[in-house]
Amino acid sequence: MLKEPQADHNAVRHLHRDAALRDRARKVIPGGMWGHMNAVRLPAGMPQFFSRAKGTRLHDVDDNEYVDFMCAFGPMILGYADPDVDAAVAAQRGRMDIANGPGEVLVELAELMVETIPAADWAMFSKNGTDATTACVMIARAHAGRRKILVAEGAYHGSAPWCTPWPGGTTPEDRAHLIHYVYNDIASLEAAGAEAGDDLAGILASAFRHDARFDQELPTQAFANAARALADRQDAALILDDVRAGFRIDLGGSWQPLGVRPDLAAWSKALGNGYPIAAVTGTERLREAATKIFVTGSFWCGAGAMAAAVATISKLHRTNAVAHMTRLGGMLRTGLQAQADGLGVGLRQTGPASLPMVLFDDDPDFAKANLFVVTALQRGVYLHPWHNMFLSVAHSEDDIAIALKATQKALEAVAGAFPQAAAGRTETVDG
Amino acid sequence: MLKEPQADHNAVRHLHRDAALRDRARKVIPGGMWGHMNAVRLPAGMPQFFSRAKGTRLHDVDDNEYVDFMCAFGPMILGYADPDVDAAVAAQRGRMDIANGPGEVLVELAELMVETIPAADWAMFSKNGTDATTACVMIARAHAGRRKILVAEGAYHGSAPWCTPWPGGTTPEDRAHLIHYVYNDIASLEAAGAEAGDDLAGILASAFRHDARFDQELPTQAFANAARALADRQDAALILDDVRAGFRIDLGGSWQPLGVRPDLAAWSKALGNGYPIAAVTGTERLREAATKIFVTGSFWCGAGAMAAAVATISKLHRTNAVAHMTRLGGMLRTGLQAQADGLGVGLRQTGPASLPMVLFDDDPDFAKANLFVVTALQRGVYLHPWHNMFLSVAHSEDDIAIALKATQKALEAVAGAFPQAAAGRTETVDG
Repeated sequence: MLKEPQADHNAVRHLHRDAALRDRARKVIPGGMWGHMNAVRLPAGMPQFFSRAKGTRLHDVDDNEYVDFMCAFGPMILGYADPDVDAAVAAQRGRMDIANGPGEVLVELAELMVETIPAADWAMFSKNGTDATTACVMIARAHAGRRKILVAEGAYHGSAPWCTPWPGGTTPEDRAHLIHYVYNDIASLEAAGAEAGDDLAGILASAFRHDARFDQELPTQAFANAARALADRQDAALILDDVRAGFRIDLGGSWQPLGVRPDLAAWSKALGNGYPIAAVTGTERLREAATKIFVTGSFWCGAGAMAAAVATISKLHRTNAVAHMTRLGGMLRTGLQAQADGLGVGLRQTGPASLPMVLFDDDPDFAKANLFVVTALQRGVYLHPWHNMFLSVAHSEDDIAIALKATQKALEAVAGAFPQAAAGRTETVDG
Repeated sequence: MLKEPQADHNAVRHLHRDAALRDRARKVIPGGMWGHMNAVRLPAGMPQFFSRAKGTRLHDVDDNEYVDFMCAFGPMILGYADPDVDAAVAAQRGRMDIANGPGEVLVELAELMVETIPAADWAMFSKNGTDATTACVMIARAHAGRRKILVAEGAYHGSAPWCTPWPGGTTPEDRAHLIHYVYNDIASLEAAGAEAGDDLAGILASAFRHDARFDQELPTQAFANAARALADRQDAALILDDVRAGFRIDLGGSWQPLGVRPDLAAWSKALGNGYPIAAVTGTERLREAATKIFVTGSFWCGAGAMAAAVATISKLHRTNAVAHMTRLGGMLRTGLQAQADGLGVGLRQTGPASLPMVLFDDDPDFAKANLFVVTALQRGVYLHPWHNMFLSVAHSEDDIAIALKATQKALEAVAGAFPQAAAGRTETVDG
């Protein structure tokens, strides 16, 4: 009989099958994987391939089980394989998915979004968050025939040539009409607006500053007001990129608590609880401009994904989803803070509680973050070292308790490996 | 008892519910609909909204049944709701769809595409045809740090700012590095290549010329050879846009019968029999460049859609799909030609038989085409007046017989309404 239960627990967390699949993948996929799910950028010990998912539980291909705090990078807002959403999709698909035109569910979904989102007088649908942010930019430009778009430095708005974070394959002309400002910095926003002058088409802002590898920042009231005022003053469109945060801060849109209404908003990720769908919503003022752009895709009218979105929004309403995710995210945050304080480990938890971000002090190469995450992973909890995480309606107090058991061990590992970490100051902001 | 069976048949083909839904849609969707499925551009009498689909049979929301020849604008290559594909998706989704990384099915699908497509040494996946064509352009540019892309005038390659057919919301810079040639015109291709000079990154060509509202043109052997030679001579990438035609001409790629291998190819539509998926395939030479671009999307690793693609490709192999679609498309074409000849109606059927295109002589405003299509629709057959159509593996000889009964009446209507039509000459090319 083993005396140390962790030893046995750890023993099963091998990644043999994952390693074999990576070898096969490298032969038929450039670099073995692409994009934000490429595990090459994660610390060794984190799996690339997964096999099963239900609720908050995710299994890798070696059948290690994790309590997951990434929700597939956001979409699984009700948890994996939500039975209500899956049933709605099965019923719709039993009749029809895609055809030569949309199903009635297109109209139902557009009506539901207009009811749910105060700044939405209309909606259009697509598949990727990038489809939605790109359509917003196009609609803003079509509105008054102008070109300049203000974008926050370092913000992620998708992976089209105009916004992808890597320069590879892009040309300077792809972003010729972008002018950058600093999120929450009103002076820089005003300066960018002045530079755009009467060519200002739109001001693009994320729901909050959620750049990977940086502390998150909620928008200040003054910044949101200034963005609204600048758009009004120059008859430009205020565009809210709610792709990542949408439905985790306020069902009516992430700037709704600030009382600031965007003219256009981009949605995706959580909208269909994992079924592929994205949306643009807009105000009456932008409606005509939206008819002047040609955007489309073979699968954009998929009725199954639209039924998923109707079922997801309906369930978010009736489960009081935002309050639940905020409460459990708060429990995780408070517990983690107490653990870090107890061990004298300096870390920063920033942004909304429903979208946790944990970064360590004095951790320029993310060595502490990597050790923290890998140690938690060995104890059955999937966290991310440098990207915001995601709560879901499926997360329970038990899940938080399991997570905190793992993070205690993970923080002990950090404190042990980086004794100077104990010198850091802990800090929690943006509650 | 009715003496004229058509009268009764027609009587049920009202569109009351469709009209009511269009009214609701106009309130919550700009213009009531967007993109290629917007029925506003179709003649009155064609429905916007659909309710059921199975095999080749499509029902509109008023429950009128049609034998469909659009296949949802291409995707339904095995027919609507194919049981084998749906079972594969259900099995995969029962385990996992999206997660924090892909499933094993990603590797299986990439391996299957590499096996199936001679010019594919690797594959990457996304959601929209536009995602795939855009990634091809980015990879071509990343390959040697060059910018110019040759594109055929009037060709449709998607709806991103660099390629969308409408100017609304785009800037001149979005297409600053495109140089146009005329499809199948070698001199114009060479001139475009000379203009690009040592800044030539890629040559983009559709599988065949399938511009809406124009006669289709298969690529000539000389044109395909010239494109390959130009790419080789200037170390640029030959990019085949096989989004629309893929798997309906040759499972190995639409230029495989010509013996011309592209460096990059874009796939979507038929790849997953309606489940949303797109792919880029490429040769060894372009593999490294593909690792230099950052493209991604929340749903790109959806294991359900990948399982659909594996099941679709497998079934296309074992049903000898291309031969079946070509034979039935040929039956439709031959029958239609005989009917037109008998009535003296001048029409042109162009392109591959599996992707039928029917245009009428002396029909600048598509009045004949509209009457033809609406009359066929009233007899339960869904055709398109100015876009290529699509055969599927599900189409049977009975479906063709039903279609030809309807087209006989439809051509009689055209001959009656446009007596001068009888003066036209009928012509079939590109067999």
